[in-house]
Amino acid sequence: MVVTPWAVTGDIDYGKLIEQFGVQHMTQGIADRIANHAGYMHMQLRRGVYISHRDTDWWLDEYEKGNKVGLYTGRGPSGHVHLGHLLPWFFCKYLQDAFDADLYFQMTDDEKYLFNDHLELEQTIGYTYENALDVIACGLDPSKTHIFSDTEHIQHLYKIGLRVAKRVTYSTAKAVFGFQDSDNIGMIWYPALQAMTCFLQSNREGANIPCLIPAAIDQDPYWRVTRDIAEKLGYYKPAQIHAKFLPGLAEGGKMSASQPETAIFTTDPPKTAARKVMSAFTGGRDTIEEQHKLGGRPNVCNVYAYYYFLFENDDEALMERESACKSGSLICGECKKQLAERVKAFLVDFQAKREKAKHVLDDFLIKPVE
Amino acid sequence: MVVTPWAVTGDIDYGKLIEQFGVQHMTQGIADRIANHAGYMHMQLRRGVYISHRDTDWWLDEYEKGNKVGLYTGRGPSGHVHLGHLLPWFFCKYLQDAFDADLYFQMTDDEKYLFNDHLELEQTIGYTYENALDVIACGLDPSKTHIFSDTEHIQHLYKIGLRVAKRVTYSTAKAVFGFQDSDNIGMIWYPALQAMTCFLQSNREGANIPCLIPAAIDQDPYWRVTRDIAEKLGYYKPAQIHAKFLPGLAEGGKMSASQPETAIFTTDPPKTAARKVMSAFTGGRDTIEEQHKLGGRPNVCNVYAYYYFLFENDDEALMERESACKSGSLICGECKKQLAERVKAFLVDFQAKREKAKHVLDDFLIKPVE
Repeated sequence: MVVTPWAVTGDIDYGKLIEQFGVQHMTQGIADRIANHAGYMHMQLRRGVYISHRDTDWWLDEYEKGNKVGLYTGRGPSGHVHLGHLLPWFFCKYLQDAFDADLYFQMTDDEKYLFNDHLELEQTIGYTYENALDVIACGLDPSKTHIFSDTEHIQHLYKIGLRVAKRVTYSTAKAVFGFQDSDNIGMIWYPALQAMTCFLQSNREGANIPCLIPAAIDQDPYWRVTRDIAEKLGYYKPAQIHAKFLPGLAEGGKMSASQPETAIFTTDPPKTAARKVMSAFTGGRDTIEEQHKLGGRPNVCNVYAYYYFLFENDDEALMERESACKSGSLICGECKKQLAERVKAFLVDFQAKREKAKHVLDDFLIKPVE
Repeated sequence: MVVTPWAVTGDIDYGKLIEQFGVQHMTQGIADRIANHAGYMHMQLRRGVYISHRDTDWWLDEYEKGNKVGLYTGRGPSGHVHLGHLLPWFFCKYLQDAFDADLYFQMTDDEKYLFNDHLELEQTIGYTYENALDVIACGLDPSKTHIFSDTEHIQHLYKIGLRVAKRVTYSTAKAVFGFQDSDNIGMIWYPALQAMTCFLQSNREGANIPCLIPAAIDQDPYWRVTRDIAEKLGYYKPAQIHAKFLPGLAEGGKMSASQPETAIFTTDPPKTAARKVMSAFTGGRDTIEEQHKLGGRPNVCNVYAYYYFLFENDDEALMERESACKSGSLICGECKKQLAERVKAFLVDFQAKREKAKHVLDDFLIKPVE
């Protein structure tokens, strides 16, 4: 198992990651507090998508004291967006509404360029604008969302990035990110920009605003570095809430853009996506006879995972599906066909929102401080 | 002797530096060619201020073929400007006129912040605007001068900086600049920005424009790195012409802002500057009697150096002064008094130009590419 900000491979043992990264297990109490402010418990909270956190309870304390709170997440724009990317963005929309919070959304087009030999800057900047449409299509509030590109909006970022950079030694960066002397000097600088966003809202508003970062756990090394220097800069340590990875359609690993046949992209024609679903890895048996006799295995089934994480909000219906699978009455072909229909319907709707986003993109981009 | 971009100490052995840095000795041929285009030989060329170069002959070749050529120099804004800083800026003005060349003038306020524990970003940015007045007061052409601050104008610089950074490894930066693991990650990134300016005009104009950098020889490590990657980026290697350091008023070393009593700042009240001149180290003898008998030693005299480099343009008058000194007829007190008068007159004039510069500062700052 390898989990760094740039590579996630192997079977992911979240228990081990939580221990290794020194973060806290998610609790029912935190989920309940969030749901209380939101007015309902988000499916992702009910289904345990968020497995760990750092100081999310403190962030909630601050909000409950009547203090303003903020959100930060981001995207490395190296290709099209797939369903795995959308999970935390939907959750950000939920948190934004629940806590009336500004969301700073970072497009790390510099990172993707610096860390990938085969990517040109024009490409990562192109994906920045492409991917921003997906972010907007998640339903965020334009008056409280600040999407920015590291390269296109660097004038809003560079000074605070320098303040961070001055306090992070190469030793620290090497220890945390595993840099080698053969790495380029842009890569070594880059963590300053990812860290700086934790303080961006505070810096822009001239107030210390607690920041919560919903993101996959592989980004944790950045926040460790950031937390170490936050107080030296006069800011709160950022809080985090960590999502599991959405599995791909093939066996094992997370959904990955580098294996396009195993990922459903928001830009896939709905029929293409349906075809991918029909070829997905399931927990089914080798023959229909065996399946009827022994039942399916939803616990290892990616099709089930899609219902679980995204496509079946109704807990009762989900349990019925699980029972039908385990009893052998629901066979994989039928179950996949039903999912394919839901995926198609989702994409038709999402792609319409994505089209509309083209006309309002500017409203969501970061603006100079007034 | 230590000469790096951040420290110049000890007696400077230029011959050794030329060998160590692998640059070429300045030639009369190059001086003649420059003078030919300018219409006259600049005092700094006549007096050997420029001691070495890299590819300045090639840069002249390109100009003589009818190609456009450009200039780049800069300033680390960590304090007020002194006369030593002005030397290459006056020379840039001369070259700008002679070659109808655009000058890109970089204010490295990020560098000064990152490399100096005691400097805050607000200070280095403040000095950027302060020092820009001095640059303008040197008489540059606003239509062909582009002063920029790394922090205030980063939006014009970051993308090309990233292209440079991607091609410079930490190994290389460590070998050239002597970075240590305890250095901060901003310092390690910074050389990308100093290197990028070599290509900035070419990048903005979409053409490959030969760039000449008049600067003190201590900046050479940056150009070595830049030259190694220039062609990979599709640009010409930048050419350089290296100035000697103007000595301080005390014995030994270059004029340094860190020893304010030994440096004449452009912001010094003329009377203060005159007082500093009167306390300068000279090549005089211990007593007036000895001076009359043995004569002075202009070769080790800082007061003579000021006439030589800045305050006596007339070669014949300079030789007369030298003879009078050596013969013992001109004593130090008198010679200093005459220099003090010239320094005062210079400052009155320069400070008036500096005041006027406040009204036209914007005309000299870099603009977005149209």
